[in-house]
Amino acid sequence: MRLLEDKILKEGIPLSDSVLKVDSFINHQVDPTVMKEIGKVLADHYRDKGITKVFTIEASGIAPALCTAQELGVPLVILKKQTSKTLSSDVLQTNITSFTKGTSYELTLSRKYISPDDNILVIDDFLANGEAASGAAKLIEAGGGRVEGIAILIEKSFQKGRNRLNEAGYKVTSLARISHLAKGVIEFCEADI
Amino acid sequence: MRLLEDKILKEGIPLSDSVLKVDSFINHQVDPTVMKEIGKVLADHYRDKGITKVFTIEASGIAPALCTAQELGVPLVILKKQTSKTLSSDVLQTNITSFTKGTSYELTLSRKYISPDDNILVIDDFLANGEAASGAAKLIEAGGGRVEGIAILIEKSFQKGRNRLNEAGYKVTSLARISHLAKGVIEFCEADI
Repeated sequence: MRLLEDKILKEGIPLSDSVLKVDSFINHQVDPTVMKEIGKVLADHYRDKGITKVFTIEASGIAPALCTAQELGVPLVILKKQTSKTLSSDVLQTNITSFTKGTSYELTLSRKYISPDDNILVIDDFLANGEAASGAAKLIEAGGGRVEGIAILIEKSFQKGRNRLNEAGYKVTSLARISHLAKGVIEFCEADI
Repeated sequence: MRLLEDKILKEGIPLSDSVLKVDSFINHQVDPTVMKEIGKVLADHYRDKGITKVFTIEASGIAPALCTAQELGVPLVILKKQTSKTLSSDVLQTNITSFTKGTSYELTLSRKYISPDDNILVIDDFLANGEAASGAAKLIEAGGGRVEGIAILIEKSFQKGRNRLNEAGYKVTSLARISHLAKGVIEFCEADI
């Protein structure tokens, strides 16, 4: 997606060979116009796929996921990051360890918001090693739902997330794919849309 | 706002005299149509006030705040809840203790996203004792900005948040105001819009 690549080149700050800061339009300040366009592009791509709900992981995925859900006319479900296991049969949980951030949490979904009738589009801001997206897919399937696809704003293509998700049978659609990152350097390879 | 009150009566679960669960359309699953309407109503209310940015607190305020920012054509800033103090002069922080949730965190704002030219609309999902909203206002003012108003989806009017914010000089606009809450009981008083 050209608009997103241009925005990344203009405002993204490549801090190291693994960290790209996009605080000015995705993670801290959010550009509503860019999010609306992302929502339109993703909705167009998935419009004929029978999506019943859009899922995302709090907090940075909420804005693009909401815009996509609005365009598709389906509910959004925000998977919660909880610090501890919930002792209740009403929720599904899976432990996620983020190698990128060095954190660990229980990704949490209430059983009320997933059913065997659901065909889900998962949306997240970044794809690195794929822990969060894999966890989301695991919860959806534990609730009987189907994962139609995983859509990503910014994929770090030099990390193993996409391969790992593809090998597990998931289709990944990334709006921007970074092939090489270094302090002061951002290089793209061809995006999916 | 009649639409929101109706939705609360239909789907909200009053668990006790202080806890209202709105997981089905605000906090876990999000209803994009309701959020869009909230965005329109809030944007109409603040359209002639010279709002430069909408601020919210992660994560449940993001959806209505993004929709309002989209309608007003201004950026959204998401204040972060960090677990520890950041040792950097680039960020503003204030400690928030939520009596409702029994949690404590450092509400965090990068100085890059606030300036003396800013006139801010703060949006949050709930107002109870006003700790989060007061903290947001404090950060905005520490960065030289002005708080035009604080807009709330659901105010627990029987708690002290509104009075506390009014006494500190802030205008509060609530879309639904709950005067009485008990297990199985929700009563409204007149909302601001």
